Amino acid sequence: MIQTLELSVRTQRRNELVDITAAVQEAVQKSGVREGFVILYVPHTTAAVTVNENADPSVRVDIEETLSRLVPAGPHYHHLEGNADSHVKATLVGPSETLLIRNGSVVLGTWQGIFFCEFDGPRHRRVYLQIHGE
Amino acid sequence: MIQTLELSVRTQRRNELVDITAAVQEAVQKSGVREGFVILYVPHTTAAVTVNENADPSVRVDIEETLSRLVPAGPHYHHLEGNADSHVKATLVGPSETLLIRNGSVVLGTWQGIFFCEFDGPRHRRVYLQIHGE
Amino acid sequence: MIQTLELSVRTQRRNELVDITAAVQEAVQKSGVREGFVILYVPHTTAAVTVNENADPSVRVDIEETLSRLVPAGPHYHHLEGNADSHVKATLVGPSETLLIRNGSVVLGTWQGIFFCEFDGPRHRRVYLQIHGE
Repeated sequence: MIQTLELSVRTQRRNELVDITAAVQEAVQKSGVREGFVILYVPHTTAAVTVNENADPSVRVDIEETLSRLVPAGPHYHHLEGNADSHVKATLVGPSETLLIRNGSVVLGTWQGIFFCEFDGPRHRRVYLQIHGE
Repeated sequence: MIQTLELSVRTQRRNELVDITAAVQEAVQKSGVREGFVILYVPHTTAAVTVNENADPSVRVDIEETLSRLVPAGPHYHHLEGNADSHVKATLVGPSETLLIRNGSVVLGTWQGIFFCEFDGPRHRRVYLQIHGE
Repeated sequence: MIQTLELSVRTQRRNELVDITAAVQEAVQKSGVREGFVILYVPHTTAAVTVNENADPSVRVDIEETLSRLVPAGPHYHHLEGNADSHVKATLVGPSETLLIRNGSVVLGTWQGIFFCEFDGPRHRRVYLQIHGE
């Protein structure tokens, strides 16, 4: 049984990690799948998805700021749309994650949350979820 | 139904993102799978696979150059084969991607293409595709 | 058929790539799955999993040191637990990998091994394996 869904994410800043854990858990719980996996896929070239701590909000600020220190915006790129840095960050973090489902929920460690990573916002964005299992 | 295929990639430069979108789409379309997913896997330790913009070719140059700025080649590594930088880049980008299949094609955003990432070319390389679905 | 297992990993240093190839291969071989895939998932926010060379141990040292050069530990972060760098590294490398199974074994290139990436050790850690196939 394969179920495919789409989440909408509204980002507010150019660089922003948005916690989508609750929306992903709700989609998985509604699917009725008890044991399986879910593929998260971001169909954008200046955004990504990751898993990291969602207890202390400062962790996501450190991730945003460190990525911007490593890959700063600026005029020193070949791509002339002003978002070359956003594209590079998207490849460093990656467009997808595959997460496990057990007992009807996504398996996450105690401190883990799922984050949509905006690198060229604010924008309306989408995340696809493909849920597999029984 | 599981189908496993192998793509060959001939790279031309030491660092090079090669667009393999058409080859992956063709393999998925030939598989007959309408709904499912495909795992792309790179069996090399100095190469990787990513998804990013394939409309403006300068995006891939920015990715190549930024990775080389962050992880430059040079004599300051422990691994003495001259490609320690290539190994580090492979881990930063990652050896696999899982992509969704819907209506018989790989799901990609408007601007997305699939890129084999060469970090120690030129070489003959391979990408494995494992296609799942019905 | 879905089988889920858990590996234990005891790390010895703050930053350390631990070769878990043999443990993953053993789990897959015991599962009886001949053709399929295995999802590796790290339920921690300061650790990750990657695939890279396991022939020359200096490659993993170069990966550890380069990541620490790019994302150094220090007081210049917002997260005040002293491991903000560890969280950023976890997102750069990523919490999961999906590997192919053929002929009853994980498919790996000649030089590839599977590494648990510790970024805030030493600790007791876990890796989940979900094995799919027939």
